Amino acid sequence: MTAVLRMPAPARANLPGHRVVLGTEHELRLDCGIEFGPFALAYQTYGTLNAQRSNAVLVCHALTGDQFVAEEHPVTGKPGWWSTMVGPGRPLDTERYYIICANVLGGCMGTAGPMETNPATGKPYGLDFPVITVADMVRSQKMLIDHLGIERLFCVTGGSMGGMQALQWAAMYPEHVFAAVPIASAARHSAQNIAFHEVGRQAIVADPDWCGGDYLSQGKRPQRGLAVARMAAHITYLSEAALHRKFGRSLQDRQKVTYGFDADFQVESYLRYQGSTFVDRFDANSYLYITRAMDYFDLAAEHGGVLSRAFTGTKVRFCLVSFTSDWLFPTRESREIVHALNAAMANVSFVEIETDKGHDAFLLDEPELDKVLKGFLAGCAEHAGLDR
Amino acid sequence: MTAVLRMPAPARANLPGHRVVLGTEHELRLDCGIEFGPFALAYQTYGTLNAQRSNAVLVCHALTGDQFVAEEHPVTGKPGWWSTMVGPGRPLDTERYYIICANVLGGCMGTAGPMETNPATGKPYGLDFPVITVADMVRSQKMLIDHLGIERLFCVTGGSMGGMQALQWAAMYPEHVFAAVPIASAARHSAQNIAFHEVGRQAIVADPDWCGGDYLSQGKRPQRGLAVARMAAHITYLSEAALHRKFGRSLQDRQKVTYGFDADFQVESYLRYQGSTFVDRFDANSYLYITRAMDYFDLAAEHGGVLSRAFTGTKVRFCLVSFTSDWLFPTRESREIVHALNAAMANVSFVEIETDKGHDAFLLDEPELDKVLKGFLAGCAEHAGLDR
Repeated sequence: MTAVLRMPAPARANLPGHRVVLGTEHELRLDCGIEFGPFALAYQTYGTLNAQRSNAVLVCHALTGDQFVAEEHPVTGKPGWWSTMVGPGRPLDTERYYIICANVLGGCMGTAGPMETNPATGKPYGLDFPVITVADMVRSQKMLIDHLGIERLFCVTGGSMGGMQALQWAAMYPEHVFAAVPIASAARHSAQNIAFHEVGRQAIVADPDWCGGDYLSQGKRPQRGLAVARMAAHITYLSEAALHRKFGRSLQDRQKVTYGFDADFQVESYLRYQGSTFVDRFDANSYLYITRAMDYFDLAAEHGGVLSRAFTGTKVRFCLVSFTSDWLFPTRESREIVHALNAAMANVSFVEIETDKGHDAFLLDEPELDKVLKGFLAGCAEHAGLDR
Repeated sequence: MTAVLRMPAPARANLPGHRVVLGTEHELRLDCGIEFGPFALAYQTYGTLNAQRSNAVLVCHALTGDQFVAEEHPVTGKPGWWSTMVGPGRPLDTERYYIICANVLGGCMGTAGPMETNPATGKPYGLDFPVITVADMVRSQKMLIDHLGIERLFCVTGGSMGGMQALQWAAMYPEHVFAAVPIASAARHSAQNIAFHEVGRQAIVADPDWCGGDYLSQGKRPQRGLAVARMAAHITYLSEAALHRKFGRSLQDRQKVTYGFDADFQVESYLRYQGSTFVDRFDANSYLYITRAMDYFDLAAEHGGVLSRAFTGTKVRFCLVSFTSDWLFPTRESREIVHALNAAMANVSFVEIETDKGHDAFLLDEPELDKVLKGFLAGCAEHAGLDR
């Protein structure tokens, strides 16, 4: 694949997994108006596509996720971000389903994004990369599904921004999705969430090493700004109760406060660690682009301000999940989607799971989530006539 | 007063109001163990101290507040931060009470803080300023009250960190306080709040212009880092509902999104404005010191982990106020204090005010807060035998 040669970033040169160049015949028409392509999409698969090509499940990742759903991460060495959910006998059972996950457009794990070389200049795109939307991500995934010869996805699912993609899939390609499971998500990004994203972006662009977005060409990386952005965001992924349970006011390896600015408290130490490890695996410009895509997400706005119109006549079966302690994508956001789906006479079930783990609950060991997904998919498989 | 000569920062040289040098005879013994003094305390007063010196109300300001409670701010030109509350006929009635407000220790509006000249070096303190606590702030205020010849405060009140000081006053000097009104406060800083403060501090120290805290000597100011810190904090002062009501997803002076990183959304533009105006009036090192003081605040810890012991046998009359949409200092934090006061058989009333304005409600036009304060103080005045 020639696309590999176009990747400049040393850390990404030897990524394992699949990488396909799409948009060679027909470019991808982005929401911003640009005809984009050819472009690379990096993806992973788990399990086997059946003969009818009817058992494919597209997993959509969240803001800082990637395609390494259920295997060791090639950069961090940590388990896949949804290895509790994807595997033999797990809710997304790889002995039954063919799991696909692609790094989103604008990402930094092999898919076209601001880190990649701009063929027009021979240098990394930086801010010359076009601003993309959640719909653009989904369009690129549809091209991948077409490329794989899959007419209809059995299911599309994901948490947070992954849930936005699942909703967008159902709205844009209802004939090509049997079931959709948006978890801890929303039909639009709230003012508070835009505000938190803006803080993260400002932390990045305030870092002199960001160099107006051109840091890769200049051999620099805005690591301090990106770490601050991650720290701020990380707090919003947890709940006050979880932070209290995990850390409270416990001190870090000391008996007394030091009357200084070291990380006296465990929660400070934890946050600093989250910031510093994040910069090893993530690209600052990708952070700008993907947060922007989330901010722009507003499914109702694409349909005259009426969310139910996004789903008129849909045959997609929906299961929505929210978590009681998630204050970033609170239950009321999922409930609004359920109301719209009800108004559209769609087939929808909705579960609010009681947990203190906050927004991150979808990534953590949450047995009720497993049960909900397993049960919903089993019912869908029966209706879809999926062979065991 | 010689103290004025010790102030190096040009912006602070001609501040209006009072400034007293304390700790000339007896230094202030700080919690960190340092004997500190002499030091300057800047303060403002409104109204007249009565002949019995019994009508003094100490107003304690929050993290980024200052002594300019009820008059035009000398730097920003804006009305005093509690001008809705303090004035003739207002709840803190200047025709009845003598209102005192001092810039806190560690602050940057004339009181000793990291901006001030370190007499040992002749340069601004920077990080050589000792780390202070809420109790240290209160000790310095007690020295001021002694200096003013006031034996007992009729009331001590404040919101947020101001409420922490009110609690600390009641705990440390119960014989010198008749009534205490902590608003939107807590007896200790939560893990989540420490986490948000740590993000702000990291944003500041990540700014190369912070220069290890020595920016004033080097003619620099970490404005970008301080602005990011302010932006992150500002979100926590509001509620999701207030942000939704004020901004929702409305665009800023445009009909469509621009597919770029300008402030497309009003909420982004608002946040950027909050960040950029803040740096004109606040010192980055003061931000580090005062957030640290709040993080360290844990009134129960000073009393063997049992909060009620902080108030054993107290005769202080308490009125606690919280706001339904305040997620930074939620009602349950006030309720814990009420429980402790009940356990200590203290005289306490408690009001939770229904509002969508979030933590900042204590600073905004909130008629029920006015009514609560007015009523509580009228009752206290009667019991205290305060002449009209």
